[in-house]
Amino acid sequence: MHLKRSPLAPSHFPDMPHIGGVQMWTAKTGAKYQGRPDVLLVKLAGESRVASVFTKSTAPGAPVEWSKACLARGANAGLLVNAGNANVFTGQIGRDGVRDMANMAAGKIGCEAQDVYVASTGVIGEPLILSPIEQGVKGIQVADVNCSWEDAARAISTTDTYPKGSAQSCTLDGAPVHICGIAKGSGMIAPDMATMLSFIFTDANISRAVLQVLLSELNETSFNAITVDSDTSTSDTVLLAATAQASHGEINDINDPELVSFKRALGLVMHDLAHQVVKDGEGASKFVEICVTGAESGSAAKAIAMSIANSPLVKTAIAGEDANWGRIVMAVGKSGAHANRDKLAIYFGPHLVAKDGYRAPEYDEDRLAGYMKNSELKIRVDVAVGTESFTVWTCDLTHGYIDINADYRS
Amino acid sequence: MHLKRSPLAPSHFPDMPHIGGVQMWTAKTGAKYQGRPDVLLVKLAGESRVASVFTKSTAPGAPVEWSKACLARGANAGLLVNAGNANVFTGQIGRDGVRDMANMAAGKIGCEAQDVYVASTGVIGEPLILSPIEQGVKGIQVADVNCSWEDAARAISTTDTYPKGSAQSCTLDGAPVHICGIAKGSGMIAPDMATMLSFIFTDANISRAVLQVLLSELNETSFNAITVDSDTSTSDTVLLAATAQASHGEINDINDPELVSFKRALGLVMHDLAHQVVKDGEGASKFVEICVTGAESGSAAKAIAMSIANSPLVKTAIAGEDANWGRIVMAVGKSGAHANRDKLAIYFGPHLVAKDGYRAPEYDEDRLAGYMKNSELKIRVDVAVGTESFTVWTCDLTHGYIDINADYRS
Repeated sequence: MHLKRSPLAPSHFPDMPHIGGVQMWTAKTGAKYQGRPDVLLVKLAGESRVASVFTKSTAPGAPVEWSKACLARGANAGLLVNAGNANVFTGQIGRDGVRDMANMAAGKIGCEAQDVYVASTGVIGEPLILSPIEQGVKGIQVADVNCSWEDAARAISTTDTYPKGSAQSCTLDGAPVHICGIAKGSGMIAPDMATMLSFIFTDANISRAVLQVLLSELNETSFNAITVDSDTSTSDTVLLAATAQASHGEINDINDPELVSFKRALGLVMHDLAHQVVKDGEGASKFVEICVTGAESGSAAKAIAMSIANSPLVKTAIAGEDANWGRIVMAVGKSGAHANRDKLAIYFGPHLVAKDGYRAPEYDEDRLAGYMKNSELKIRVDVAVGTESFTVWTCDLTHGYIDINADYRS
Repeated sequence: MHLKRSPLAPSHFPDMPHIGGVQMWTAKTGAKYQGRPDVLLVKLAGESRVASVFTKSTAPGAPVEWSKACLARGANAGLLVNAGNANVFTGQIGRDGVRDMANMAAGKIGCEAQDVYVASTGVIGEPLILSPIEQGVKGIQVADVNCSWEDAARAISTTDTYPKGSAQSCTLDGAPVHICGIAKGSGMIAPDMATMLSFIFTDANISRAVLQVLLSELNETSFNAITVDSDTSTSDTVLLAATAQASHGEINDINDPELVSFKRALGLVMHDLAHQVVKDGEGASKFVEICVTGAESGSAAKAIAMSIANSPLVKTAIAGEDANWGRIVMAVGKSGAHANRDKLAIYFGPHLVAKDGYRAPEYDEDRLAGYMKNSELKIRVDVAVGTESFTVWTCDLTHGYIDINADYRS
């Protein structure tokens, strides 16, 4: 099936700088995809530190289990990714396959297998056939120049309709520092670990512990704040590698004031990548921000926002450019979180459509209909019981989603 | 929009007997629907007892709040239903409207307003305009014969593509007893109070307390065990009225052995109606039973079954007749309930597709593809951590769902 580039895609892949200490190569195995790279090998400099967050699925794939063990022992040598087969629910053969993949990468970049993270994405339940990956990795010439970030992003994608990258720079102790990230994902995107795969690299010199805190915290408001279809992948992995090649001393205190600008820059990269994943949501024609305010707690605000963002009735109405705010009320009600129905206010962009539990006097169907034609929409709901808020991002539910998912395997 | 009769619809509306003590009339207001009844008025005999269960939405409609108050005070005189406007999120005007509707019905059937249950279904958030309903109720001639059950079922429907009815008979203390139910619902169907509206009538002589226990218990494995799209209506109401006109003494003990056959008959009516609602799921082309066995608890089994039944990826695969069991594994994993991934077994009908955390040796794609062409499918998942089970029913997710919901209001 040929997938058309999402109408919400950015106009071009961003310019992204080289990150000192990161070497990358791709390979084309031809196993599932023809004429495009589907394997990514990354070698990290010796001083690198790695942080990572994984799917919360209770049926994670073998690569996730392998990489969790890598993280636990502080592995930092490299990363091997394949696209096309997720190597999930593949039993002992799958576990053996991950170990073999790590061995292939280790042989190529010169390290121990247990120092190599592995990530796989694609079909679930098909036994992984190793020989094409082995051929692909064997063919990589580590003396060659790095592949481009765009090539790397392409190598990890499956149903994605465009490669996803984002970069930011900042200074740490006066030294210039760069952050570059790539991501893939468009379906099976849900609250917990929204993108299937994202790899972020920086030359900053930051301790592992601080890196992990930053990643886990920023993950909550970026990759964990997006949803395409409420389904949770068995393979989700976000990995952040810092090569420590920037010319500043190590930062090992999460409260170091120098971290402020780095955290902001990292947050921008993660937000940008998360939004790019939603904008490539399978069949998406609208990008929708849903902000819930006036909630009892942040988690209540998130529960309500996700209830709205995951409602098929809300998502199909948006696809039809119908400002069906009654379905927003329904989704608030089904979330189970505390809300004052009789004080509820709902905005579509600048337009107040409901307040005090009733349609707003200034409600104007024609103006709303005009607003709904935008490809980026903002919906704000005030639930009038507190002061906490949360924002999530989603897309609409269209015929394209069904076309893509009704015959993904065939 | 003209909706085609669901391909899963039963061949005809069932024969359903008269229930002594129940009088029913319909009216056509023309407010939203032309050429069909959209108001149902029911008068119950003086000795009647009523039990009811309602939506768990925290933003329920004004009619639900009114009827909850009726139930609390033991109201038993009658019922007024309108279709086309749900009278939800309509503030004080909505609350006044329900009271006015109850008054109209009370005037017609000769009782106090607070003795009349009210239910409304249709668009949320539109202010309810009373005059067409008032004209409709005024035009009803209570001296006329009862309307048919089919007419009554038609009068309460919205996007339903066929009227839903079910009947059973049994004996209580040797006396023949009848149970007749009608239901409406096809979208906004979710775990809590799956159908939007169902009204069940019996001539049995059973105390209110016993009636309520039976209804609440059977509701868990019927209307609360179905899902079309995971969305929870703000209007869901299931009402069970017993007119006590059968020729047996009152049953007021939930452990009375005479109740066994009545409970079974009532359960059959509720299951039948619940299944009919799913079979009219918006855009449905497949009726799917999902049975989870080997779970730690009944609620864990239900959580896993609902996670599978509500997964857009599972539902679109079924629409595409693709036995994509990898997505079943994904949905088990995202449910969060305890499951042994490495002992998981999955059956599609009689076909074992996975066991011991791996594709089954006897897996045969061609035979599976043949099975998936059936319009009724059974999926069984054994999660291998206990002995509890739960069964839910759902339908597939097709282009029809999007067609219906992208322009429901227009």
